[in-house]
Amino acid sequence: MGLKGKDLLGVRELSVEEIRLILDTAASMKEIASRDIKKVPALRGKTVINLFYEPSTRTRTSFEIAGKWLSADVINISTSASSVVKGESLKDTGLTLQSMHPDVVVIRHAVPGAPHLLARLLKASVINAGDGAHEHPTQALCGPPTLLPRYVETLGVEKFLRIEQAIADADVIMMLRIQRERMGAGLFPTLREYSKLFGLNVDRLKAARPDVLIMHPGPINRGVEIAPEVADGPYSMILDQVENGLAIRMALLYLLAGGQAANN
Amino acid sequence: MGLKGKDLLGVRELSVEEIRLILDTAASMKEIASRDIKKVPALRGKTVINLFYEPSTRTRTSFEIAGKWLSADVINISTSASSVVKGESLKDTGLTLQSMHPDVVVIRHAVPGAPHLLARLLKASVINAGDGAHEHPTQALCGPPTLLPRYVETLGVEKFLRIEQAIADADVIMMLRIQRERMGAGLFPTLREYSKLFGLNVDRLKAARPDVLIMHPGPINRGVEIAPEVADGPYSMILDQVENGLAIRMALLYLLAGGQAANN
Amino acid sequence: MGLKGKDLLGVRELSVEEIRLILDTAASMKEIASRDIKKVPALRGKTVINLFYEPSTRTRTSFEIAGKWLSADVINISTSASSVVKGESLKDTGLTLQSMHPDVVVIRHAVPGAPHLLARLLKASVINAGDGAHEHPTQALCGPPTLLPRYVETLGVEKFLRIEQAIADADVIMMLRIQRERMGAGLFPTLREYSKLFGLNVDRLKAARPDVLIMHPGPINRGVEIAPEVADGPYSMILDQVENGLAIRMALLYLLAGGQAANN
Repeated sequence: MGLKGKDLLGVRELSVEEIRLILDTAASMKEIASRDIKKVPALRGKTVINLFYEPSTRTRTSFEIAGKWLSADVINISTSASSVVKGESLKDTGLTLQSMHPDVVVIRHAVPGAPHLLARLLKASVINAGDGAHEHPTQALCGPPTLLPRYVETLGVEKFLRIEQAIADADVIMMLRIQRERMGAGLFPTLREYSKLFGLNVDRLKAARPDVLIMHPGPINRGVEIAPEVADGPYSMILDQVENGLAIRMALLYLLAGGQAANN
Repeated sequence: MGLKGKDLLGVRELSVEEIRLILDTAASMKEIASRDIKKVPALRGKTVINLFYEPSTRTRTSFEIAGKWLSADVINISTSASSVVKGESLKDTGLTLQSMHPDVVVIRHAVPGAPHLLARLLKASVINAGDGAHEHPTQALCGPPTLLPRYVETLGVEKFLRIEQAIADADVIMMLRIQRERMGAGLFPTLREYSKLFGLNVDRLKAARPDVLIMHPGPINRGVEIAPEVADGPYSMILDQVENGLAIRMALLYLLAGGQAANN
Repeated sequence: MGLKGKDLLGVRELSVEEIRLILDTAASMKEIASRDIKKVPALRGKTVINLFYEPSTRTRTSFEIAGKWLSADVINISTSASSVVKGESLKDTGLTLQSMHPDVVVIRHAVPGAPHLLARLLKASVINAGDGAHEHPTQALCGPPTLLPRYVETLGVEKFLRIEQAIADADVIMMLRIQRERMGAGLFPTLREYSKLFGLNVDRLKAARPDVLIMHPGPINRGVEIAPEVADGPYSMILDQVENGLAIRMALLYLLAGGQAANN
């Protein structure tokens, strides 16, 4: 069995069974990362194109490593080196890429819906690696498997005005990065004030359960939304998330590119 | 038998036999692109350097995929990351590269003749991937094999003042991109006027033969030299050209790098 | 036997035995570069990350080729495409990279000590590929083996006010590049005056021993610190240095990443 769609554009389009399949596959991929020889022939002869219209080193690097460990050929295209400077439309870029027979195109684009446009044009599988303020499904899938059910089944999210209330009874605290580069002035007064009111620090963490887990998709703004002692502390899952993110990306490349022989 | 020269700098230096050899090799390379596992060991242990002094995503990507499908190691060098910022001359860059023992150097440079200079300096094969307004031989070789004889043997080119005349009796209409980035002001009044006078649109195409083929090396300027309905229409060979261009590049890398075992 | 430390941060931390090991390994690596098929499986399944905060094409290219010839997966990260734009600290970049399980991280950074910070954070081996005006050990190790003893054992360096004196009795003349991009105004009047007073030209070379060897780490400034006739002349070892530098980098990747099977 595999995924029903040819693409991964958003988490909402996945069934619970598909999410379980991805996470189970990711668990076996994660085992590869712990080996001395991190290489399986699953995607040998398959071509993955990383098409990044915005810089995002950790996402691009993660997909590149994921592809290479699976023995795929990985091609990076970034806007700085792109024919976009010649005024070519996303449609024509997509059609051109299709003529090069890639198996998977990973796209990051500032415009919401850009990956969906590409997915309709291409025979290749398209993975959305972030489209502006819209979706970033391979990041949304980054929870460790043991945390999944609660995460998936949590449909109601409560809104708290004070962070202490929010922390008090949580099993998992999911932080998000303050995306300074996407924010205009005026959303909140200053970073310092934001940090004082909403930043997660050691004092605030005292209100949390003793087995709380702290998550953050990275890159973190130390001293803004999260204090350094918390980011580096014993409850932090932040680096596990990076590791899990890599395994999730390996799983998706494997499931979408139709690899045959993962377990050797 | 192979190519006589060690380099490919321009189409004019090739004999008709050599062009046939390249196109025949390209035809068998094209078959690889249609396989599920797009990988042959022909250039394993060979090193291809893409040395791009100007951005050209489609050409660079095409050579990179071509090299990787043939199992070569491909190294990309672009000016943005280049030691050119330190004032090193093309001569010294070339000599430095030669000390790294590449088998093929693919160069794109704004200055006509730059690939020829490099070719004289290096033991490696040099492929000209465009030197300014001069030559771009792997693009010139991109016609499908069935179109070849007429193309190669056409030495006289007629000049038409009105595009309708030009279209009327043509088997193939070869469009070229308006290279806005290379044009100073004054060559023609506005893009809109150019499009109105010379752009290929559905109305104008009615004057053409019913089996006309439309070619364009890409990237296209939609609505300038070619109307979207024509670019995406049934007579358009534009995407076949991209696919053939990739096969041509595989053929050239194979023939110049002296690969031994293409057919397995 | 191998290297004692997990990293290579500077030449001073290496014992004479370790330097000999590196050079002996480099000598056998150099033999690979002369083969028709330049590929050994020594580092198959190992991941090398080139983390360049400053552009340095020749160093990055040299490490990339070194890694690929040894069959490692090589990932390039340059500042232009880096999450540094999002304000992430070197510490967080390092921790993120560690979560991706690289075997070696090659770092070039403008700030002295940056590689040392990274080395303390990572389980991966860190190679210093230049930290500002501080160290650049894979370049310092670039002498050919036969020149080694004199070089290693030379602890006292004499200071000469006139270049003629310096040249007169030298076995080896080691030039350095005038790093125009790191120099403020005022260190010396003009490049022309510098060249006139200190540049190595054919006239000055007459004062040297007849078997003198001229070295320079590149990229050279032709006509500034070295005249073109000298750089390209019979005594010049400059291109041998590039070739030896590549072999040294292969040796270091091999020794640090713990490859097992170099000689097949």
